Amino acid sequence: MLDTLIKNVTAVTMDDEGHLYHDAYIAIKDGKITYIGTDAPQEQAEKVIDGRGMIAMPGLVNTHSHAAMSLMRGYADDYVLQEWLNDHVFPIEGKLVGDDVYWAMLWTQAEMLATGTIAYTDMYMHLPKMAEAAVDGGLYANISNGAMCFNPAGYCFDTDSVTGQNREVLERFHKVDNGRVKLDVSIHAEYTSFPGLWQDFSAYAAENGLNMHIHLSETRAEHENCIAKYGKTPAAILAENGVFNTRTTAAHCVWVSDADMDLLREKQVTVAHNPVSNLKLASGIAPVARMLEKGVNVALGTDGVCSNNNHDLFEEIKLAALLQKGVSGDPRLVPAQQALKMATRAGAFAQGREQEIGQLKEGFDASLILVNTGKPGLYPVHNPVSTLAYSARGGDVYLTMIRGKVLYENGIYTALDMERIRSKMEPILNRLFRA
Amino acid sequence: MLDTLIKNVTAVTMDDEGHLYHDAYIAIKDGKITYIGTDAPQEQAEKVIDGRGMIAMPGLVNTHSHAAMSLMRGYADDYVLQEWLNDHVFPIEGKLVGDDVYWAMLWTQAEMLATGTIAYTDMYMHLPKMAEAAVDGGLYANISNGAMCFNPAGYCFDTDSVTGQNREVLERFHKVDNGRVKLDVSIHAEYTSFPGLWQDFSAYAAENGLNMHIHLSETRAEHENCIAKYGKTPAAILAENGVFNTRTTAAHCVWVSDADMDLLREKQVTVAHNPVSNLKLASGIAPVARMLEKGVNVALGTDGVCSNNNHDLFEEIKLAALLQKGVSGDPRLVPAQQALKMATRAGAFAQGREQEIGQLKEGFDASLILVNTGKPGLYPVHNPVSTLAYSARGGDVYLTMIRGKVLYENGIYTALDMERIRSKMEPILNRLFRA
Repeated sequence: MLDTLIKNVTAVTMDDEGHLYHDAYIAIKDGKITYIGTDAPQEQAEKVIDGRGMIAMPGLVNTHSHAAMSLMRGYADDYVLQEWLNDHVFPIEGKLVGDDVYWAMLWTQAEMLATGTIAYTDMYMHLPKMAEAAVDGGLYANISNGAMCFNPAGYCFDTDSVTGQNREVLERFHKVDNGRVKLDVSIHAEYTSFPGLWQDFSAYAAENGLNMHIHLSETRAEHENCIAKYGKTPAAILAENGVFNTRTTAAHCVWVSDADMDLLREKQVTVAHNPVSNLKLASGIAPVARMLEKGVNVALGTDGVCSNNNHDLFEEIKLAALLQKGVSGDPRLVPAQQALKMATRAGAFAQGREQEIGQLKEGFDASLILVNTGKPGLYPVHNPVSTLAYSARGGDVYLTMIRGKVLYENGIYTALDMERIRSKMEPILNRLFRA
Repeated sequence: MLDTLIKNVTAVTMDDEGHLYHDAYIAIKDGKITYIGTDAPQEQAEKVIDGRGMIAMPGLVNTHSHAAMSLMRGYADDYVLQEWLNDHVFPIEGKLVGDDVYWAMLWTQAEMLATGTIAYTDMYMHLPKMAEAAVDGGLYANISNGAMCFNPAGYCFDTDSVTGQNREVLERFHKVDNGRVKLDVSIHAEYTSFPGLWQDFSAYAAENGLNMHIHLSETRAEHENCIAKYGKTPAAILAENGVFNTRTTAAHCVWVSDADMDLLREKQVTVAHNPVSNLKLASGIAPVARMLEKGVNVALGTDGVCSNNNHDLFEEIKLAALLQKGVSGDPRLVPAQQALKMATRAGAFAQGREQEIGQLKEGFDASLILVNTGKPGLYPVHNPVSTLAYSARGGDVYLTMIRGKVLYENGIYTALDMERIRSKMEPILNRLFRA
């Protein structure tokens, strides 16, 4: 007996062969895909989902977020970066307590589910509360406390205060729910720390088998100041200090050099490309086509919504493709299929989940979305890959399933109590912004 | 007795003073706004709309579309422009008959209504059928047949075959429904015609009080070839031949010079900026911030969805703002309010409707939209202008009203029979693409 059978669906698999099925069946048992193809399974299913007029694809992976920043959505736009940070973002972040982060992350995970995201890599603060929210939210999550330290003299490696982790937090949350939630190690960025910290954190990550998450060459100033200080680019100096020795996600990489790209490829670092945030904060346009050409694994992220201002990865997919065409003059660059890969398989690799998610394939987790092509803006469907990359928006997602469980369907959340979450958000917003 | 009263709404008026009301009332009678503000009107209303959790704003104006190209949505992506046109678009367009255009335009108007667009300026072919579709669709529409003629020797001015208009079509459709549908004159572009045609068309437009619609300096090649041919930019040579003598919308203007911008401002030409299409076809990024600084009226368009691939103007609003920040390095350029103005008032001026639409103001048409901020991706609302420009997508539009009539509400169309339209689209698509 199958748990679920999806039938009559168009399936964009994202597998190695780029299989695309029409009128397909997807059979699901114990949270896994047991069959995908055009032959009707013989087994009965407890639940049948009619996918007529829908496109199924692997759920999306957001490889760079600060989920709790949803509290600051639209709070400070159109400012220069330092003013934005110092006068607006940091003062609010200074007031945050763990429960604020918990509820804001639940809210954000609801937004993610409704727009087709099943997994995210999040860097923020109050790690134990982040972890609780990740466990309760139901998505795959790689989370970390972005470590900043401006005082090398006073620094001593202390996992509790600097990483936000300690043995207890690690044991309690790392790989819980069969690996659904993982703890990463995070160094906020080159310019907010120093070599001693990088070495300690890298060693800690290696000892505990943890991924690394870092901001890299986001702005020109940051990139050039590093060269002035160390005589090396951020990528080079961080690599030298061991930062890329475990699986690493480097966010932004707007200003990386050709040699940096070679290094990132060699170290199998994933670049989390955040096109909306990079434009909005005027950081620039990352050389994504060049990185892809060199074989770098480029995935997508939304960044925090204070610089976006939403978590709709479909927007990043489209913009990632379009920007490379528009600035190069070559409309063939980053075609639709490649843009979808960035949001699925490339992200799965970044999280160390490339054997679980990112493809619709037998043996993989049944973690997928159905996009409704019945709306006027998605019809006709001449090419489902194009429809997903260029016509669809997060709001066109009809259903989001993780490990065989429907977590979102047509506006309804099966596991999150949205009224309760919102009732918790209101007093938090009042305290942070109106007190 | 009021026809409709909207209450408890947040209203972004887009008026001269930038009024923003919370808990506002919008009173509507005979298709006009009779009051907007925070005092409860004394008059009773036949219908009351509770706008709690909604933001009201003027309906959006799409100043450059080829609406019937929805038939080709996603049909040919990621090609170079000439291959895209010659091998894909033109062969399909050669097969189009008037009824194809009629049904495809109805479909597109449904998409527009659902994503907050109330008015569009459309250039295509089979003008009488375009006009019928515009009348039946319910939106404000300025429509024209884009004239191309490659043979100056064989050319003689013939309104019937070249403009697609004649006295009968003009009398039947121009300014019908109290000006809701208007015929424009359209010269497709500088490079697809010649001075004799420009002069005749401009004279025809002036005689009949018609607006002009043209593609201008979309690609670098087009711009530079014109300089090589005439020793002048497209804007300069067209102006010299009278093309900007009636109110003109010039689409794209990616490669215009500083002197061109001065000319466009002087002639009160509206630039229809199409950021998605310009990126997707790799035409480049129009110098919008520079044009705005010079006082040019810059509005927004989607272009045809074969190069977009949807008609969601909220996407153009956000991208118009973000691109100027990202390429300049200055995040203060094109702030949220200015981006919204491009999609509302600037477009209203382009269509000659600046006394009717584009603002929520007493005496203006009650042609507005309600955006639902209850969704996770639009909450919290720290600043409604920011929410509209940076967080909202077309799918967040809850209600679209034109002249006091609700044409779309929460997925339901009150005037369009979507099942019938779709049943007409299917055989058209089969004939065009599968025969």
